This record gives sequence, structure tokens and C-alpha cells, in this order.
Amino acid sequence: MEEKIQKEDTGRLDRIVDFCRLIDKEKFIRRRTYLTDGGRFENDAEHAWHLAMMALLLSEYSNERIDVLKVMGIVLIHDLVEIYAGDTFAYDTEGLKTQKARENAAADKLFSQLPDDLCLKLRALWEEFEADETPEAHFAHTLDNFQPMMLQAATDGRAWKEGHRKLSEVLHRNAGTSAGSEALWEYAKKHFIAPQLENGHLIQDTEL
Amino acid sequence: MEEKIQKEDTGRLDRIVDFCRLIDKEKFIRRRTYLTDGGRFENDAEHAWHLAMMALLLSEYSNERIDVLKVMGIVLIHDLVEIYAGDTFAYDTEGLKTQKARENAAADKLFSQLPDDLCLKLRALWEEFEADETPEAHFAHTLDNFQPMMLQAATDGRAWKEGHRKLSEVLHRNAGTSAGSEALWEYAKKHFIAPQLENGHLIQDTEL
Repeated sequence: MEEKIQKEDTGRLDRIVDFCRLIDKEKFIRRRTYLTDGGRFENDAEHAWHLAMMALLLSEYSNERIDVLKVMGIVLIHDLVEIYAGDTFAYDTEGLKTQKARENAAADKLFSQLPDDLCLKLRALWEEFEADETPEAHFAHTLDNFQPMMLQAATDGRAWKEGHRKLSEVLHRNAGTSAGSEALWEYAKKHFIAPQLENGHLIQDTEL
Repeated sequence: MEEKIQKEDTGRLDRIVDFCRLIDKEKFIRRRTYLTDGGRFENDAEHAWHLAMMALLLSEYSNERIDVLKVMGIVLIHDLVEIYAGDTFAYDTEGLKTQKARENAAADKLFSQLPDDLCLKLRALWEEFEADETPEAHFAHTLDNFQPMMLQAATDGRAWKEGHRKLSEVLHRNAGTSAGSEALWEYAKKHFIAPQLENGHLIQDTEL
């Protein structure tokens, strides 16, 4: 629990609630992953909820000992900067070149709307995810890669098929997936990727 | 972190991943709250994400000292049973009569799909929310009431106006809101409810 010294400071509560209202926009940011019924694309808020649930359910498969609360904080906020920077599609090579600069500017604009202590707290979680150097950040990245592949497989690789996606691209995107969990990466290869190679919805241009 | 003794038990991982895939259905369950842009109703997964974010940002306003990780677990899973029981609208008096029995049956069916330890863990979080006796459950209920009123106010009480909602109904629904946070309940009365009485979008049939 945070300190209560500023409980009477209604300006503080105003700012926090304004931020809570602002981040409703996370629900309007469309990703490129179909939901399991194939009816529509997922949005950022749904994605973040799913990752937090998976942190709760799959933490035992982390390679290293992790602070689950920190992982949950990281995955809940990891896409918030897209409220200002927009979603950069994982296979958009042009967008990826400017992503870092756009997202840093967005982080400045977004988190500074919070009182200083909460600004620092959320910014630190986001920086930790971006730097990808701690066990918690590694596991958050693993989940961030594992979850869309799980949905992808549930729709028989539909988005991969529509995007004429190649295995080499999927492996490139997943270069760090095993760093958080070797068990989940092995599972993903066997259950999510291999079936899409077999049915031809993912182009096999290299070895799995 | 959980124990790793069963890491090699792929049957266990299969069951957990199957559950992770199943709960994608949470994204298909529509609530009766408009998002801040008024474009559509919120779904259960978006709602749960928003509550978890607000647990992270507003925990200092809890009346009592709380375990934030537990609150986050509770709010992330609190509506999962609706995958089988459906959403019961807060102002549906007929639906509310059968809600408890429907949701208990749904919880049995849903959580039993997990390995025993995780079944118990999620069931315990859900039971704690339902029993509403701990500081964490109180605060989770406060957020569960505060968040939709925040969205309601952002759309000038649109859903209240469309539903010809009365203040007495809103107060009845919020009977326990102050138990988790007096500060948030006072804030909600002043900033979310009072303006809708002033503009006539909420019918004033009693005193606020």
C-alpha cells in the first residue's frame, strides 16, 4: 500500500482519476491478432488483461525466480504508450525503425500526467520492459509473444496466412522468447508454430 | 513463483494453456457501460484490465491496508464465471435472483479445468470477492463500482439516461462502495453522480 499522507490532497486524486479515464483509450487500439472465434481483431486492453491472467497462471514456467506482482504491473502497462504512439505491427519493418523514438515521446507525454511518484513507478515498469534485462521483463516478453501465437493457432494461423508470413519472420520476432521461459518456447514451437507449417498457413523458408 | 516440481509434466502445461485459451471468451461478454467515446459497450476483459490498472494506481485510497497483488488477482478473475453464467446486469432484478446459483455452477465447471492447485487458487480469489469480507475484497468491490461510474460520467450519464435510472437504484447498487474506500465513494458522489442529477440524466427520487 502507498503512503496515505496525501489522502486529503484532492488535486492528487483528480490527477489519478483523470489518468484512469484517459487510459480507457487503450480499448480503441486494435492489434493484428484475431480472437479465438475469428470474429474480430484483439485490442490492447484485452491483450494486456490476457497477459496478466497468464502471468498469474504460468509463472511457474519462468526460467528464473520472478516477482509476479511486478510481471503483472509490467504486462498491464506495457502497451500504454500506444495511446499516443499507436500500435506498431510486429512485422512492419518501416514502422519498427521509428518505434523507439515515437514511444519515448509518448511515454513522456503520458506518464507525466500522473503525480510524480506514480509517474516514476509506471515509467520504471515500462523502461524495465523495454530494456528487457531482468527476469520479470524476460518473462513479460515471453508472454507477449506466446499469447498472440496461442490465438493464432486457435484460428489455424489465419492472420499468418493472410499476411503471407514466413517462418523466418516468426523466428526473428521470437528471438527472445526462450529467455523468459524455455518451456513455453518449446511448447509454442510444437503446438502453435509446427501445425501452421504442416497446413501451409505459415511459409517454411527455414528450419524450425 | 510457484514450485517447479511439475515442470516436466506436459499434461499440466497442456491444461493450463487450454484454460488460457478458453478464457479468451471473456472478451465476448458485453457489459452495459459505454466506453468513454460512447462508440460501443465495454466487454468483461477490458473491464477487468481497467480495474487491475486502477488497483495499481489507487490502492493508497483503500480504507485499510491491502495486498495489492491479491486485489489485482481478484479483479482480473472476478467476472470469469460469466463465461458460463453470462453477465447479469446490475439493474436486472429478475436475473439477480438466480445469479448466485448460476455463478456457483459456472465456477465449478470453469475452475475444475485447471490443475488442482491452480483451481483452488482461482476459486479462492473468486470466493473471497463474492464473500466480500476482507479489505482486499472490499477494495475490489469499490473499484468494480467506481470504474463504471467513471465511464458513465465520461459519456454524460448516457446509459443511465437510456435506462431511465433512478438515484435510489444507483445508491442501492453502491451500498458497499464506501467499505473499500470512503475517499473514492465521496469522489464518485461529487464527480460522477451529482452532475448526472443536475443535467437530469439520472432521476432524483431521493437525497444523494
